[in-house]
Formats: sequence, C-alpha cells, structure tokens
Amino acid sequence: MLTGNYYMIYMKFTFSSMLSEMKPSEIRELLKMANTKGLISFGGGMPDPATFPVEELEAIMADIFKNSSANAFQYGVTQGIKPLREQIRRLVKETENIDCTEDQINVTSGSQQALYAVSKVLVEPGRSVITELPTYVGAISANNANKVNMVGIEMDDNGMRTDLLEDKLSKMKAGGKLPEFIYVIPNFHNPAGYTLSLERRKHLIELAVDYNVPIVEDNPYGELRYYGSKIPSIKSMDPDNYVIYMGTFSKVMTPGLRIGYVLGDAEFISKVNLLKQALDLSTNTLSEYIAYEYLKRDIMKKQIPKNIEIYRKKRDAMLKALSDNFPSNSKWSKPDGGMFVWATVDPAIDTTRMLARSVKNGVAYISGVSFHPNAEKRNNMRINFSYPSVEDIHEGIRRLSKTLEEEAAEIESSPAKAQ
Amino acid sequence: MLTGNYYMIYMKFTFSSMLSEMKPSEIRELLKMANTKGLISFGGGMPDPATFPVEELEAIMADIFKNSSANAFQYGVTQGIKPLREQIRRLVKETENIDCTEDQINVTSGSQQALYAVSKVLVEPGRSVITELPTYVGAISANNANKVNMVGIEMDDNGMRTDLLEDKLSKMKAGGKLPEFIYVIPNFHNPAGYTLSLERRKHLIELAVDYNVPIVEDNPYGELRYYGSKIPSIKSMDPDNYVIYMGTFSKVMTPGLRIGYVLGDAEFISKVNLLKQALDLSTNTLSEYIAYEYLKRDIMKKQIPKNIEIYRKKRDAMLKALSDNFPSNSKWSKPDGGMFVWATVDPAIDTTRMLARSVKNGVAYISGVSFHPNAEKRNNMRINFSYPSVEDIHEGIRRLSKTLEEEAAEIESSPAKAQ
Repeated sequence: MLTGNYYMIYMKFTFSSMLSEMKPSEIRELLKMANTKGLISFGGGMPDPATFPVEELEAIMADIFKNSSANAFQYGVTQGIKPLREQIRRLVKETENIDCTEDQINVTSGSQQALYAVSKVLVEPGRSVITELPTYVGAISANNANKVNMVGIEMDDNGMRTDLLEDKLSKMKAGGKLPEFIYVIPNFHNPAGYTLSLERRKHLIELAVDYNVPIVEDNPYGELRYYGSKIPSIKSMDPDNYVIYMGTFSKVMTPGLRIGYVLGDAEFISKVNLLKQALDLSTNTLSEYIAYEYLKRDIMKKQIPKNIEIYRKKRDAMLKALSDNFPSNSKWSKPDGGMFVWATVDPAIDTTRMLARSVKNGVAYISGVSFHPNAEKRNNMRINFSYPSVEDIHEGIRRLSKTLEEEAAEIESSPAKAQ
Repeated sequence: MLTGNYYMIYMKFTFSSMLSEMKPSEIRELLKMANTKGLISFGGGMPDPATFPVEELEAIMADIFKNSSANAFQYGVTQGIKPLREQIRRLVKETENIDCTEDQINVTSGSQQALYAVSKVLVEPGRSVITELPTYVGAISANNANKVNMVGIEMDDNGMRTDLLEDKLSKMKAGGKLPEFIYVIPNFHNPAGYTLSLERRKHLIELAVDYNVPIVEDNPYGELRYYGSKIPSIKSMDPDNYVIYMGTFSKVMTPGLRIGYVLGDAEFISKVNLLKQALDLSTNTLSEYIAYEYLKRDIMKKQIPKNIEIYRKKRDAMLKALSDNFPSNSKWSKPDGGMFVWATVDPAIDTTRMLARSVKNGVAYISGVSFHPNAEKRNNMRINFSYPSVEDIHEGIRRLSKTLEEEAAEIESSPAKAQ
C-alpha cells in the first residue's frame, strides 16, 4: 500500500498562508552565532548575566522546594497565579502610577506572547495597526504571523512624531479605515534608543481619544534609566482604558524565566485569557512563583541600581567608541537608558549586504531592515551595548568602523557591485 | 480634548473574528474551583504531586545554580537548547523506536503550543482536519483559535474507527476537500481512555499514504501504562515522514515546567520554529536546562515505575467505585493507562446541565460536550483519576452516583424542565 510517488510526497504538507509574510529573524539567527569564537556581537538584546540576581534566586528556589513544590510544579491558572498578579498590580502602581485590579492583568510567557495576543485579539487579518518606524522586530513578527498590516510613523530624538501620526490618522479616517491600535515603546526605544517626550505622550492620548483608537504601550526598559528624569507612563494619563500596557521581567529579573504581563480593559484581558488557553494553557508555574517571591521580597529595588551602574558604563563606553571611531558621515542616537543605539551610516551602504563582511571582521549587529515592516531602509543598524563587555564595546566598534570604511571603499571603486 | 461619549468608549475595542468560536474552557474554570473546600474534583487532568521527583529536581537546581546560571537564566534559541533536543532524540528512540535528528525536533511551551502550531502552520483558516470523537479539549481550542474546522470520527474500545475514517476520507476526496491532517491520541486517549489497536495503527498509516494526508500523533500518556503490553507508536511505522509526533514532560516530569516537543518533517519543523519566534521567542530556558538534566540523569526511568504504582491503584479504585455505585444504565471505558475514564450515562441526562447539582453535591467532572467540537453529545463525562486520592475516588463516585440518581428522578418527575 506504500505507493507514494515523488509528487505525492512533495505535496504531503501544505502550509498556511498566514506564515507567508514571516522570515527567519536575523536576531535569532545571530543568537546562534553568539558563541562563535572571537566574534563580538552587538546583535542580541540580551541582558548582561552579571546583572542576574543569582543569590536571591537561589534563596527563593530553596524556599519553593521547602514550601510550595506541590503547587509550583503543577499546572497553574491561565491568567497567572493570583499572588503574582497582586504583586504586579503593586509594582505598576509604585513605578508607573498605574491603577488597575489584578483581574485586569494577564501574565504572559514573555512580553512576546503579549505582542502576539494583542495583534491576534484586536485585529482582523488584513487590517492595520500603527507602529513607530523603526519598530521592535518581535512586534513585526507577531503582526506578520496574524496577517496584520503595519503603518510606520517616523521618529526623531523625542520619539514618534505625533504630528505625522495626526496627519496619518486623519487620512486613514477619511479613507474609512482607522488602525486597530497604535503601538509605541515610549522609553529607550528598541531599536532606536529614543524616548517619547511628555508633550508627545499627552498629544498621543488626545489623538487616541479623538480618533477612538487604543494605544498599546510596551515598556520593557522603563526601569533602566541612566540619565535624566522619569517621564510619566502613557497609561498613567489614560482617561478611560484607552491604553493597554505591557511589561516584562526579562530586562530586570532574568529573561530565561519568560515572564511578561499585559494589563488594561477588562473585556480585552478576558479575550487574552481565552486565547492563551489555546496558545500554551498557562505560563510556566515555577517561573510565576519565582517572580512572585522576587517582587514580594522587593529584590527588584535592590537589583535596579546595580543594573544601572553596569549599563551606564557600557552606554558611555559605546557612545565614546562611536564618537572616536565611526565615519564622520554617520550619526547615532544617544539613549538615556535601555540597551540599544541606532546608527545611520553612509546612504550608499546596505547594512544587510555588509553583515557578512562585518562577521568576517569579527563583529555583528542587526541591520535596519529587520526593524522596518516593509524593509524600506537600508543604511541603519541596531547596536546593543548591554551584553558585550566595555573592552569588547571599544574593540567591536573599531572593527565595525573598519568594516564601514572597507564597504564604502568597495562601493566607491565598484559602484555597480554594491547594488 | 477628552470628548469621549458613551458610543465612542463602547466601540473603542473591536475583537478579531478569529476568537468567535472560542469559549472559556470548563476545565480551566474548574481548575479555579479545585481548591474549594470539600469539593472532590474529577475535573482536571493534573498529575498527583506525589509523583513529582522533587528531590531530584532540587539536586538539578543546585547544579544549575553552581554551573550554568549565566545560561539557564538567559534567552535561549527558539528551537530549544541543543543538549535537550539531543536527549529528546535519545528518548524517543529508546521509548518509541522513533528515528530523527535533533534538527527535526522543536521544543515547545507545553504540548498545547505544539497543538496550536500544528493547526496554525498546516491549515488555512476555514479548512478542515480530522480528529477522534471525542477529542482533547486543548486541540479543539487550538483549532478554534485558528478557525480550523474539525471533522470527528467515532471511537470504540480499540480507538478511532479507521473503517469510518476510510469512508470519510473517500467522501472528502470525492468532494475535492481532503483534510489537512488526521489528529490522534493513540494511547489512553484523553478524554476517552481507549488505546488504538496495532491493526488500526497500520490501517491509519495506509490511509495517510493512500490519501496523502499527514498524521499528527499526540502521545502525552504513552509511558503511563498500568496493564497490557506497549503497542508500537504510529511514528515508528512511518514510511516517509507522514507522521508528526508530539510529546510532553507534563505527565511524567512535572506540568509546571511547561516543556513539550514536536518532531517530524524538516520543512514543517522550520515553519514551527518561525512561528514560535512570533508566539514567545523561546521556551523557558531554565525549564529546558532542568528537562535536559532530568533526561541525561535518566530520572524518568526511575520515576515511571513509581508513577505507575500510584496511578494503577487509583485506576483500579475508580473502576471498582464505578462498578459498585454507578447506575446500571451507565457504561464507561476501562483504560489500561493514562488518567481518564469516559462515562456514558442515561441518555435523558445532559451532563452540562447536571454540573451545578454535582458541584453542590461536592464533586466535579468535565461534561462530554467540552470534547465534542460541535457539542453534539450531552450524556458523557470525563472522570480523572490521577489527581484525587483513593479515598476521594470512592467518596466522589458515591456523590456522583447520587447526583445521577437525583438528576434522573427530577427528569422523570418533570421531563419538560430537563430540556
């Protein structure tokens, strides 16, 4: 009966068109190279393991084994264990002046799951959302997986240009197709490093109300401010549940525990909970217990100053190395926090094309197209400073500068080849 | 500018039609009641925490803190850490005689994520798959979330009736719409408790080849056999990657660590990996390290006999309690393994309607409609025996029998009310 001919075998699997927009993430591919000998990677967005509160986690684990192993290793509720949601409620009140109840919070398997859920729950395939331009690659993949179109709004040093947003909303309304939500990363943007000014946050809320479009505020880096003063969260200025807010314990606790959360409108949260039953039943219960103890013991408050001390030095080293080495026709953001610098180089250079040369020269980055939903920009790169050491930052930027010079020289000598 | 009137506020969020088929799972709701004082729950599908290898996990955690904390708490690769995939490759070879490479394996956040990915990757919304009838509620929610239709094939004591499957495939082919895959839980089926016979496994493979339709073999309970002899996995008889196989460490290691896996056709696995970047970036890294050490140290081989000893007693107690107490017009499956008995009661009884009375009487179950994609059956229930104690099994089945008698008496006295 095993009659399969080649054609039959070839056609055995057909794949959903939902995936047609998706391509392997350069970042995830680069993660695989991260341990390549001698390569200095500015590519990932990984925290420095020196920031992990290992001793405190060890004490927490000992207590979990002593007191809660029957629950911590068991299935948990889809929304997240209630003690953790109560601690998250306290956290967002204390750090971002956000008022909510624990019923308005859904714990997620990293904030990536929250990004996927927002896109899946709020947007019919084929419809649109607004993002900053550039925007986070994980938001792009979540939207692509759900066939959601992205309309990008340019940024400057003060974040998304809300004047351009207003124009766009006005035009979209005239065309009868408002976006389903406006996605912003207001603090120390990934990849751009910019922070949305207070004035623009207020403008953004006004536009959300006027056009009746929800805002999705993604704040993974808010606690990692190295200079300047905190700006109030958009959610804290929310007049009436226009804002869905998401956070994560990947940048301050540890990423491997995959704990994020999303909060906002109660009906929306109930839909997220319903979807999450289909996605993974529940978040890792052990991680939820760890995160609960981490918050209850106020370890975050002890960890943040240490993280800031480590990352501020790296950020300063990165900006100095860029200033000392990068070609004069380049420019870059000067972030007050977070993990990334966004560099714009010689317009003749295609940073995707240059990546192979760069890796050969011993340094990696993520090219700008990864952060453009429609891949329109070619001469940007995201440079991470949280993971590499200060020494590697200096050496890596020297290698990258050399790479830029070599690439520019080749283009000049043979312009056709560069196209 | 805060001009929002009631209409505007009400319409702020619109929800994707992808979720219209989804309703809150009775099981997840029941999990919330699981700690209600005095309630005996046959509702969940939870392992007995007495089976958790807590001492061994504690030793593993101590070693992780000593040797691997910088990696175990860091972001991991989307496909799953390679050492774990190598151990899974060894495991499926040893236990199920499955040959594959570690590149053909994707670690998932519980097998629920694998169910979601299979549906999302292989099926265009609006198209169909075949399932057993009844089938696992998590597969129903995954398919509903992706707008995938389910066509059910009735089961008997030997599992899915492949004669009916053959008829159905023939009709679907004649109609020009073959299903995208055939989903089966061959061992100790959830919810039905039946095991697919060797003869039918062979027939199933023949049909897959003849009709060129992939099989998705879901095997969460395979290691939990209390009587009889192991039957070869469908994947081990696979002539040429017709079978996608999925497994989990929720039933033998612990569920709270949320580690599942899916293996099969290389192109399919690459698509799962791509989708997983959008779903959650990667599985919990700490859990992956724990699962790796658990397999490397062969703890599973030590744990399984203990689990079997505990569960066999519970299964025997359950079948005895049913035989001693249940109304004579009921029947139920006699599973050789797994965690569930499937009972069919008086056709006049709607088990969904009866649930409130049952909880009032101090016992919970999951009504049969939860396991029927189109909710067509009304007089079945799934009864779990892995979680409750032997004493609670006896007492709970007494309560449930009393509930059935009360419900039947009420229907007899007032038939209209029962409709």
